[in-house]
Amino acid sequence: MDEIKELTDLVFSFSEDRDWHQFHTPENLAKSISIEAAELLECYQWNNHANLADVEEELADILNYCLLLAKELDLNPAEIIKKKLAVNAEKYPVEKCKGKSTKYDKL
Amino acid sequence: MDEIKELTDLVFSFSEDRDWHQFHTPENLAKSISIEAAELLECYQWNNHANLADVEEELADILNYCLLLAKELDLNPAEIIKKKLAVNAEKYPVEKCKGKSTKYDKL
Amino acid sequence: MDEIKELTDLVFSFSEDRDWHQFHTPENLAKSISIEAAELLECYQWNNHANLADVEEELADILNYCLLLAKELDLNPAEIIKKKLAVNAEKYPVEKCKGKSTKYDKL
Amino acid sequence: MDEIKELTDLVFSFSEDRDWHQFHTPENLAKSISIEAAELLECYQWNNHANLADVEEELADILNYCLLLAKELDLNPAEIIKKKLAVNAEKYPVEKCKGKSTKYDKL
Repeated sequence: MDEIKELTDLVFSFSEDRDWHQFHTPENLAKSISIEAAELLECYQWNNHANLADVEEELADILNYCLLLAKELDLNPAEIIKKKLAVNAEKYPVEKCKGKSTKYDKL
Repeated sequence: MDEIKELTDLVFSFSEDRDWHQFHTPENLAKSISIEAAELLECYQWNNHANLADVEEELADILNYCLLLAKELDLNPAEIIKKKLAVNAEKYPVEKCKGKSTKYDKL
Repeated sequence: MDEIKELTDLVFSFSEDRDWHQFHTPENLAKSISIEAAELLECYQWNNHANLADVEEELADILNYCLLLAKELDLNPAEIIKKKLAVNAEKYPVEKCKGKSTKYDKL
Repeated sequence: MDEIKELTDLVFSFSEDRDWHQFHTPENLAKSISIEAAELLECYQWNNHANLADVEEELADILNYCLLLAKELDLNPAEIIKKKLAVNAEKYPVEKCKGKSTKYDKL
């Protein structure tokens, strides 16, 4: 069975059980992803030796909200990832960007 | 086959082909997730009518970096999501938080 | 005259001239500060050699929105900074935190 | 006397007293601004009725780190704000953007 679909169902049921769906507008989910992303960043605020257990929890929080947003907007996570890789492949041709961290508009 | 593992391989190959692995320290990936999360938020900066194609691309960017970070730290996305749901189930018992958006430390 | 008050007036007039005040709810300004903060972070995404002209612009954008938010909520920037330093002085007594980047709740 | 310079001195002394200057690289300060900006955003995560005392503290935290970053890079906050307003005045001519929240590249 579809692994991501199954995870989405788990995350969504958790929210449904608590009647939280009312709070999960796309806008609020977008805010939530930014908030959790900053909590992940906080693990690396002063140096690069993060506590792995903390990183794990914050990364999971980000993924949870990403799955909820994808569901809310009827987007298939696997498909949008593949689609974006195709877009990026055009923006970043191997021969132009190999070994460089330069942004596409400055390549 | 494992859907998330397969996606991770795709995203990782894209980066390997460009010799970008050298830039993908956990700290830099954490920064990148925050940066992409803010680009998603920008779709909802002034109102809640976002352009779906933009949202799709930004959400994909966030997921891409999340997969790279999970791989880098040898974390299994599906497992950490399930583990975090178990943690959240203790922090947010249904009877205490039903229909409320209150944070667990103020419940 | 009050330097910060004068700057706030400048930033506010800029917005008033464009009839943008209608978009500047506290919530939208909070989103905007996060978005601009991430653009600043992008200057340091892959290494610590940022382009100073870019940093300057992004830092200015953050400050602009901070001034607008303070005005909107009738907060005095100088006063809230001093007040927060007093709070932080209690959270971080010199003898306990000298030379350490540890967060107060783990000191 | 220069109000912003005076505030910067206060914030900087606080950090000096604790030997924290060593942690305050521009990159770490940029991360810190993003982290605090997300804490401000959290005040508005689920609705627009934020607790004013919380907003005040988070806004102060953002401003503190902004002042430290400006000092570190030898930037004058008042000057960069005025300079950015001049840039924005060209990007957003009154007659083109009046009453619109459209980004300059889509005007």
